[in-house]
Amino acid sequence: VSAETTFIAALRALATAPAARGLIDDAAVLEVGGTRLVLTHDALVEGIHYRSDDPPEDVAWKLVAVNLSDLAAKGARPIGVLLGYTLGNPDWDEGFVRGLGRALDGFALPLLGGDTVAGPSGAPRTLSLTAIGEAAGPVPSRAGAAAGDELWVSGAIGDAGAGLAILQGSLHGDEMLVRRYRTPRPRLEAGQALAPLVSAMMDVSDGLLIDAGRMGHASGLGVTIDLDEVPLSEAYLGALGEDRAARLRAATAGDDYELLFAARTKDRHPIAKLAERLGLPLTRIGQLEAGAGLALRDRAGPVPLPERLGWEHGRG
Amino acid sequence: VSAETTFIAALRALATAPAARGLIDDAAVLEVGGTRLVLTHDALVEGIHYRSDDPPEDVAWKLVAVNLSDLAAKGARPIGVLLGYTLGNPDWDEGFVRGLGRALDGFALPLLGGDTVAGPSGAPRTLSLTAIGEAAGPVPSRAGAAAGDELWVSGAIGDAGAGLAILQGSLHGDEMLVRRYRTPRPRLEAGQALAPLVSAMMDVSDGLLIDAGRMGHASGLGVTIDLDEVPLSEAYLGALGEDRAARLRAATAGDDYELLFAARTKDRHPIAKLAERLGLPLTRIGQLEAGAGLALRDRAGPVPLPERLGWEHGRG
Repeated sequence: VSAETTFIAALRALATAPAARGLIDDAAVLEVGGTRLVLTHDALVEGIHYRSDDPPEDVAWKLVAVNLSDLAAKGARPIGVLLGYTLGNPDWDEGFVRGLGRALDGFALPLLGGDTVAGPSGAPRTLSLTAIGEAAGPVPSRAGAAAGDELWVSGAIGDAGAGLAILQGSLHGDEMLVRRYRTPRPRLEAGQALAPLVSAMMDVSDGLLIDAGRMGHASGLGVTIDLDEVPLSEAYLGALGEDRAARLRAATAGDDYELLFAARTKDRHPIAKLAERLGLPLTRIGQLEAGAGLALRDRAGPVPLPERLGWEHGRG
Repeated sequence: VSAETTFIAALRALATAPAARGLIDDAAVLEVGGTRLVLTHDALVEGIHYRSDDPPEDVAWKLVAVNLSDLAAKGARPIGVLLGYTLGNPDWDEGFVRGLGRALDGFALPLLGGDTVAGPSGAPRTLSLTAIGEAAGPVPSRAGAAAGDELWVSGAIGDAGAGLAILQGSLHGDEMLVRRYRTPRPRLEAGQALAPLVSAMMDVSDGLLIDAGRMGHASGLGVTIDLDEVPLSEAYLGALGEDRAARLRAATAGDDYELLFAARTKDRHPIAKLAERLGLPLTRIGQLEAGAGLALRDRAGPVPLPERLGWEHGRG
């Protein structure tokens, strides 16, 4: 058991308010007056969640995007953010503010406050954001799936992981993959539109397999994923192909910031219509059934689980 | 101009929403539905805001307390917190959770969520909290004082600074002073009761003089403080005496987490009644007048400003 797991278990024992959702969800849901607030706080650590040589503009974008992705997964509309910033060197900080400005503009998002501290020089920095959202309708949790529900995912999976490999020098591929790693797009519009249609929803941050397993666990169900159905982009296919290894790699890479959701079979049609309206692929990749654990299959039959399902660091 | 000042000025240019209060206030005030939310995010950096040898239980308490102090200064009732935590060693983390549990219990405060990250080993850690409050009545800013208003402060000033000096080995004194440094008490009840009576309010975190100067600057007024009126505790007097040097030291020490507020002369009586009801001294220490800048006096006449007015790091 890792130190992090122990610590989070101890925190969980303190987080007894229903609004905390047991700290297992992407965000807290707090009723205030007649409003349901959706609250999330995610940090990026240099060298872990971003690379020291990532442009600071992109790091700012990513910090905003990963937090808004949590709100998207709860169907919430962002209404403001607070920044927790550790100063770096002045040029980097200036680039960060420029990127932050672009992200705030891009999402029409008010910067409300925060705290800036001087970090110890040379040490890797931690940048954090608290995002506040307002629920437009129901606020799906990751624990709400029912036996028989189908599992869906938005967009394409694996691009960001391939982009990271390109930056690490271990892969050649389209620059678009790097952009998907550095500047993910939170699926805000899709999240709000899907919230009334789904039984459970979360974002894919640590890896499709590990995150799907978490949804199953939280819902008290087993999950089966059909690897052949995992949506891959043209750029991903061009860089890595589409054999089983490439598909497993995509499904365990993380940093996708796509929506993973469960829905009833009867809602296939409205979901397909929604995908059309949004211009965003929504793909059925599996189902949830009575039982426990994660299983994989492809056209050839059952596929053994890879040793590593994604990032264990428990983002969110 | 420090890197921090430049960075915060650049952020300020982005924080154009009225809710952000220009990033000069202790907290943001966001209207959602019929509710005014008060939001703050403050970090503690090891070696800067707390000492490596402070008990982790007390660091947890302080992290909660300094954030709630910002809410207190806005007259808000805390409704939840999100924790941004960097893992240390398991024993320390366990102590932190224990202290956090005590603080959450003590303030009847729900832990709603947050993010836990593994820090680079050996590097000083940053711990942060986002506190969410609900305004019970008016939400005083630090910019609302009017010429002729009187300046008040709660509790006693300088204890925490003396406590820090004791821990640093440069002073002998009562253990109570160390407790005031390690486990400050946010003035929540007083803040809520004062909010309708004051024209401006903030907490004293960086030092009475620097913070009073900030209130004057934000309000477009000059501030005069009578050093003889600055309230000192018995423990402080016992350790440092009450001569001008001791008073200047108290007024520039910081970490007090007392309330500093401006009020009209006509409200002296209800404020005195409130002090009685709360069992908390509320002391008139000066006034705000047309003009600019900070001036000091004592019974002997004008007192030259010390070179250092408090901490410049701009907490909050």
